[in-house]
Parts: sequence; C-alpha cells; structure tokens
Amino acid sequence: MKKINFKSKFEKFNDHWSPKLIAEMNDYQFKLAKIKHDFIWHEHKDTDEVFIVISGVIWIEFKDETIQINAGEMIVVPKGTKHRPYAIEEAQIMLIEPKGVINTGDIESDLTAPNDQWI
Amino acid sequence: MKKINFKSKFEKFNDHWSPKLIAEMNDYQFKLAKIKHDFIWHEHKDTDEVFIVISGVIWIEFKDETIQINAGEMIVVPKGTKHRPYAIEEAQIMLIEPKGVINTGDIESDLTAPNDQWI
Repeated sequence: MKKINFKSKFEKFNDHWSPKLIAEMNDYQFKLAKIKHDFIWHEHKDTDEVFIVISGVIWIEFKDETIQINAGEMIVVPKGTKHRPYAIEEAQIMLIEPKGVINTGDIESDLTAPNDQWI
Repeated sequence: MKKINFKSKFEKFNDHWSPKLIAEMNDYQFKLAKIKHDFIWHEHKDTDEVFIVISGVIWIEFKDETIQINAGEMIVVPKGTKHRPYAIEEAQIMLIEPKGVINTGDIESDLTAPNDQWI
C-alpha cells in the first residue's frame, strides 16, 4: 500500500502539457501535468474530465466564458464541451479521467501526448 | 460552468465523518469530509476508493500496516481491502468513488452517513 506525494511526483518531470500517470482507481486514472501558455481547443466526446489545480493559476476558455481556476480549486468539464486550457505562468494540475483518454481529445496535434506515462 | 473552491466548501459544514458531495464526473463523486478520532474497520467490496488529504494528517490502518497521509498526498485503497481511517487532530479530506458507495462499506454503524449530501 503506497501513498502518493504530489510535490515529489512533480519533481520528476519538467515538460509541459504531457500528463504523467500517478494512480489508478478502478478504470480511472490520476495524472499530474505542468502546463504553461496555450493549449488547443478540443473536446472529449465520451467523458467528463476533472481539473484540480495544485499550484499556480490556470484558465479554461469555453465557448461563452473563461473560468480562472486557482490552487485549491477544481472544475468538471462536461463531456462534449469544447474547451481550451491555458496558463500564463507555469501551473501544476491533476487530471482525473477514464483510462485511454487522449489529452487533445478529438484533435491530433503536436501537443498530443502519449498515454500511460507512469512516474 | 462552475469551479469549486475547497476552502469555501469546507466552511459550510463542521460535522465529522459525514462526506459532503461537491462534484460528479460521469458516475463518480467527489466528496469532502472533516474527520477526527477513530472510524470503523470496513471494506468496499466492489470499488477502489481514493483519499486525498487537503489539510492536516490522517492515518489509514490496514491489516499489516498503518499509512500516514499528509496534506498534499493521496492513497488508493483497493477494493475488498479492510481499512480503518483515523485522525488525531481534525483533518480535511476529499474522497473519490463511484456514486452509491456507503462510507462504512459493508458495516452498518452509528457512523454510517447518508449519501448525496450536496453542499
């Protein structure tokens, strides 16, 4: 039985927009990512997606509004909702979503990251 | 689209061992709880369960070991694993598990809390 320390895990990587897998619960995955600057517009057709901000500040742009999410806050992006995350300064986030979800959703991009990068 | 602030949500209740629902993602729920002193031994036969410590320190006793989990740490308790959470001082935690999971698992107890207490 092993606990997971977010700070220790974040020390293991420095690349942006490339989620690292830290835990699985049933068929769901917990991933940490460092993000900075702009991501692309995309959606996940089959699943909701949770963003939890561990440190820093992120924004998620939706069709009609942009939400600022600070450390100690979370948001559920409903399935099929086009969204574009970004951060001005580097931020540390945790993503929770089912196994197999691609970070760029329905879009193939230079930002598309491989899945199941355990750290 | 609404973000959720953990600190604001924790200000809305004071009872111990009574998880409050703050978000749903697909058929999973995110619950906040304040915990202090001893919980009971129990297991969840059909699902893993995630504990994330938001503030304070908790311990989870398993058959062969006890794990201390601090703020900024998480643990996945595998399904069918007997466990007993406790905290010496009040701690604030987030639980992630499928809809319908009972806090005391297979045991009916004074500590069994109602589900779906949205805050």
